[in-house]
Amino acid sequence: MRGGLHMYCEEKIQLKDDFWGEKVRLIREKVLPYQWEALNDRIEGADKSYCIRNFRTAARVNALRRQGATLPEQPTDDFVSLPRGNALLPEHKKGDNAFYGYVFQDSDLYKWIEAAAYSLMMKADDSLEHTIDEMVDLLEEATLNDGYLDTFYSIKNPKKRFSNLRDHHELYCFGHLAEAAVAYYEATGKKQLLHLAERFADLICELFGKEEGKCHGYPGHELAEMALVRLYRHTGKTSYLELARYFVLERGREPNYFRKEHGEKDSDMRYYQAQQPVLEQMEAVGHAVRAMYLYSGLTDLAVEYDDGELAKVAKRLWKNVTRKKMYITGGVGATSHGEAFSYAYDLPADSAYAETCAAIGLVFWAKRMLQLQPKGEYADVMERALYNSVLSGISLDGTEFFYTNPLEVDPKACKEDERLWHVRSRRAKWFGCACCPPNLARLIGSITRYIAHHAENTTWIDLYMGSVLRTKWQGKTVEIETTSHLPYTSEIAVRLNNPSEAEGTLAIRIPGWAEQWSVEVEDEDGTVWPVDLANVQSETLNSCGDGQQKAGMSYEYREGYLYLAIYGQKKVIIRPHFAMKPVFYEANSLVRENSRQMSLVCGPLVYCLEEVDNGAQQHMLYASPEAVEQAETYTLPFLGREAVGYQFAGFRKKANTVSDPLYHKAEREEYQPVTLKWIPYFAWANREEGEMRVWIYKK
Amino acid sequence: MRGGLHMYCEEKIQLKDDFWGEKVRLIREKVLPYQWEALNDRIEGADKSYCIRNFRTAARVNALRRQGATLPEQPTDDFVSLPRGNALLPEHKKGDNAFYGYVFQDSDLYKWIEAAAYSLMMKADDSLEHTIDEMVDLLEEATLNDGYLDTFYSIKNPKKRFSNLRDHHELYCFGHLAEAAVAYYEATGKKQLLHLAERFADLICELFGKEEGKCHGYPGHELAEMALVRLYRHTGKTSYLELARYFVLERGREPNYFRKEHGEKDSDMRYYQAQQPVLEQMEAVGHAVRAMYLYSGLTDLAVEYDDGELAKVAKRLWKNVTRKKMYITGGVGATSHGEAFSYAYDLPADSAYAETCAAIGLVFWAKRMLQLQPKGEYADVMERALYNSVLSGISLDGTEFFYTNPLEVDPKACKEDERLWHVRSRRAKWFGCACCPPNLARLIGSITRYIAHHAENTTWIDLYMGSVLRTKWQGKTVEIETTSHLPYTSEIAVRLNNPSEAEGTLAIRIPGWAEQWSVEVEDEDGTVWPVDLANVQSETLNSCGDGQQKAGMSYEYREGYLYLAIYGQKKVIIRPHFAMKPVFYEANSLVRENSRQMSLVCGPLVYCLEEVDNGAQQHMLYASPEAVEQAETYTLPFLGREAVGYQFAGFRKKANTVSDPLYHKAEREEYQPVTLKWIPYFAWANREEGEMRVWIYKK
Repeated sequence: MRGGLHMYCEEKIQLKDDFWGEKVRLIREKVLPYQWEALNDRIEGADKSYCIRNFRTAARVNALRRQGATLPEQPTDDFVSLPRGNALLPEHKKGDNAFYGYVFQDSDLYKWIEAAAYSLMMKADDSLEHTIDEMVDLLEEATLNDGYLDTFYSIKNPKKRFSNLRDHHELYCFGHLAEAAVAYYEATGKKQLLHLAERFADLICELFGKEEGKCHGYPGHELAEMALVRLYRHTGKTSYLELARYFVLERGREPNYFRKEHGEKDSDMRYYQAQQPVLEQMEAVGHAVRAMYLYSGLTDLAVEYDDGELAKVAKRLWKNVTRKKMYITGGVGATSHGEAFSYAYDLPADSAYAETCAAIGLVFWAKRMLQLQPKGEYADVMERALYNSVLSGISLDGTEFFYTNPLEVDPKACKEDERLWHVRSRRAKWFGCACCPPNLARLIGSITRYIAHHAENTTWIDLYMGSVLRTKWQGKTVEIETTSHLPYTSEIAVRLNNPSEAEGTLAIRIPGWAEQWSVEVEDEDGTVWPVDLANVQSETLNSCGDGQQKAGMSYEYREGYLYLAIYGQKKVIIRPHFAMKPVFYEANSLVRENSRQMSLVCGPLVYCLEEVDNGAQQHMLYASPEAVEQAETYTLPFLGREAVGYQFAGFRKKANTVSDPLYHKAEREEYQPVTLKWIPYFAWANREEGEMRVWIYKK
Repeated sequence: MRGGLHMYCEEKIQLKDDFWGEKVRLIREKVLPYQWEALNDRIEGADKSYCIRNFRTAARVNALRRQGATLPEQPTDDFVSLPRGNALLPEHKKGDNAFYGYVFQDSDLYKWIEAAAYSLMMKADDSLEHTIDEMVDLLEEATLNDGYLDTFYSIKNPKKRFSNLRDHHELYCFGHLAEAAVAYYEATGKKQLLHLAERFADLICELFGKEEGKCHGYPGHELAEMALVRLYRHTGKTSYLELARYFVLERGREPNYFRKEHGEKDSDMRYYQAQQPVLEQMEAVGHAVRAMYLYSGLTDLAVEYDDGELAKVAKRLWKNVTRKKMYITGGVGATSHGEAFSYAYDLPADSAYAETCAAIGLVFWAKRMLQLQPKGEYADVMERALYNSVLSGISLDGTEFFYTNPLEVDPKACKEDERLWHVRSRRAKWFGCACCPPNLARLIGSITRYIAHHAENTTWIDLYMGSVLRTKWQGKTVEIETTSHLPYTSEIAVRLNNPSEAEGTLAIRIPGWAEQWSVEVEDEDGTVWPVDLANVQSETLNSCGDGQQKAGMSYEYREGYLYLAIYGQKKVIIRPHFAMKPVFYEANSLVRENSRQMSLVCGPLVYCLEEVDNGAQQHMLYASPEAVEQAETYTLPFLGREAVGYQFAGFRKKANTVSDPLYHKAEREEYQPVTLKWIPYFAWANREEGEMRVWIYKK
């Protein structure tokens, strides 16, 4: 095992960023209280959760059973089929001791606790902590004597537990329990929840594994893999790590566990990424969130075991996703059919699924890829997903959410076309299948964890957010303070405070979007060293470790990072200058859906056109590739003080009307000049309802 | 009641057309024998029909019941859900006396008999006639004592008949029985089948209607409406006509029969065109085949009752379909979701449903619209649908069929994208839900019925096919002989042989696709009268009925037809010259899916690009609107002696490869010149499998 705890950046990072500070505040002040109400079914007009209700029922049933009561066994397959899975709804009421909602409903409380824990780390809140403690007590009451905790089977029939790993979600819910438990322990030092997670983990270790007599199954919805690694990192119990590895390596092996479980011979296992052994998988397939969680878990294991074969799989799948199956917004999972990856280059804008949770999963995975190997491209994708497909999932006021994140929306089509059942033109207050809102809360709440990572005496700055990071080089504390005005301008400074004169390496990311860049380094005595671009492009180490250089600096550029060797200077200020201007991108021509279309990108942000700024019938809008060079910024008061949009000259094609015939002789197009007004993609659908487009036709 | 029998062209028309003669021959020699094997489940590798099997079972069960046996009642709701409806498959075997397949399976035999009857009209075939007679005997054996005939309920539980009008198809199957019965009577003069149809019709008249105590329902799948009109026209029984009117007018009235039948309060009735009373319907909605059959039936009734209100509905719905919801190929029903009409201008090429049966239904409807009011636009649409979306449904060798008719196909997408489950890149041998193949057989088999129509002493030539038509003016026989080389050249002549010197009007259609046209009329003495275009364009009657003109001609152009008054000339030859050259069309800009794309049309034919001629990645092909002016013909040996394709200069955009990044900075496009090779749309997928496109990008 390599690195272990050291690979994972657990340092406290203080966030001092306007943009992300606001998002974190929203999570604390709006999202967490709102979601608490939702979990308790107290939001009028929103889909019911039944989550807390189920835990209370499970606790009551548990108490009755402990008192010796014999409760009727309830069926565990009496679902109604809904677009996002199977659920039990009130019409199916079977009495007071009934389970309601989706089979994975428990996980919503766990995700909420995890998000609340991150919030507590940033800002103490006794009342919130008290609420969580009450919930932990409830969880303890709902736990069976042997450590099992899942309300669906507890309530309905504990004897049937782990009998349907493919479709039910006990191991998935366990994963979220473990994540919440570690986070809550980190936030408060309280061990009760961690203890529950460990008890359940121990039970799972006892029941699952390659040994004879154990169950040879693995999670239908992945997550336990990375959760077990996290639990291992906190407890040091290698059995957790080994179980995670077992889950990953057993997946898809013959005889296929899921097929056996369901007595099926030929069912398509791609949905579950179980179509072949993981080590043989060449292509990202199936349910995109599941895939992202599996790939995150296997990348964790590649790191922990220093396993070259797993690393190869991770890199191969990464390449497949980011070169063939990812929207320009970082969205993944193109098809609503199974919320899944489609085939290579099939990336339709209007019917995109691009689930918020899948983009969140891509961020998780990218973070782990950086730990596997620090390459700028991993951080580029992480940043792209975070600022676009993830953030579009939540409204600016923090009270409404997108489940799917299309790149083109016509409200009429959303309403009238049942093939677009999954596409909405407005965010919703909550979902019966509410995986995305609490997932957003836990990612944004822990956003500081994505700023940097380190190993031994090297610290990598992966994302530029205003922050103060304390880490150790040679056992001595160093402080890295970043100021940033991203995503709107690229004015960035990274200040190293090194009072103990530690030696180490500071690696700063050169974003892929910076077509030109330069870096100035100001030494402790005020000397400014311009980093020499000619040297920087070389892959050879630049006179590092030379005694003569000790008072000075040496640097090296490698795979998207500029590595600066620090020879004990007490203070160094690094001022990167990243050219950040709006640029039109186009897709590889193998993406049929984007034929002759361009997308406006500026730094981390993808931009879009909204009807409120550009009128309806946006498929009639055109731009020349060169027009973007004349782009001007304009303020976006609805979006915040620093936010800017871009505007420049475009065209609107002369349109037909309903009184024109359906087909007419082809003519040369006529255009009239218009001003195109672009806003950041993540900010769409926060004003009047209307059309939205990321891709504009090229003139 | 107006017109009645006289409105419907029942004259024998002899077909003498190379193009259609070949299609009719295919139906006779290939399709009918092949479909007979299919109905008997004797085609290896094709979906089973179970059709004849069910009739045999019904006859056996019937005999047992007549002998006093009590058979167990079988459930009538034990279906498995399949993409195209619910079916009972062999795995659901309930014993020997079991029903198999779709609930409407009986109709396939009726459609086959109808098609076979048309074939017998053109060419006697004792063996075929004998087979039909055997089938008629079987049908008689399967008929209940009171005239009821539907194997599903006969076999499973006769007591439950007419208990699920919404989803089951007894009235639909009756409709096909009636159509077959009339056709077979016309072909052979045999009355046994007609008698069965009348008995069933009489039973339905007894059970359904507005009177108290009768059932106030109507067909879930329309067809009985127009079949009852046809049966009325042959029998003169007004009760049939009145029942058809009741079915049409009751549909969608409150309280909604289907909702009541299923105990539902708010279900969406658009699928069945029962969302509101038919007289109030403004828009074509729901299942496209059902809609076409309903609109055909209501147009029949508008004609028969001379009902202005129904006529208004027919015209309003026609305008809605042809101005907002029809593919350029004449395909209708854009969405696979419910095989239905989508919203206005939603006409995606690659996911088009455009069911063969829906285009056939549009031909039925257009024919009836012509009877309601002779307007060229109705014939234009009829012709477009017939030559394109209908004919593409059958392979050139008559043994394979398309159920859906997309306008763009990428075989990879068909195979890998489950959203395109309905799109195929190759025709299939047969379908479990086999509505289309026998529907094609009965339409093509009766193609002569679409050539002309007449009322009183006027005969309209609606479609130009080589043919000899005998009709009566002033009670005297006139013969109209047409020669035509459509669809490949517009060399046409219409010869009137009028030995009895009858007076009447011959109206010839000026096709909408003829941008320029002129007509020469050669009188009996060899004088050639050029029709004066200036006069022709006027809407006023041109000196018709003037005694002085009697020896000559008078003419008038009105709504797509040129009316020539014939004052008893014994012989007149009309030579229309219709400019027919390839033209690029584009869609109304409200059709988002066709943005910047053009479709090549020449006369009745829409053309397409196939991979075998133009290479793969066809979304990279471009053409300038003007390029078509240089189009040259080339021969298409696979398609027939006279068939031509068109070729002209186009462009292929410089393409990326899989090793290029997924997104890159937008650039000005680079093109290389190519020769675009177009073939008729109906002929696609008859050579190697590959991509196909109707719409090409405009450069």
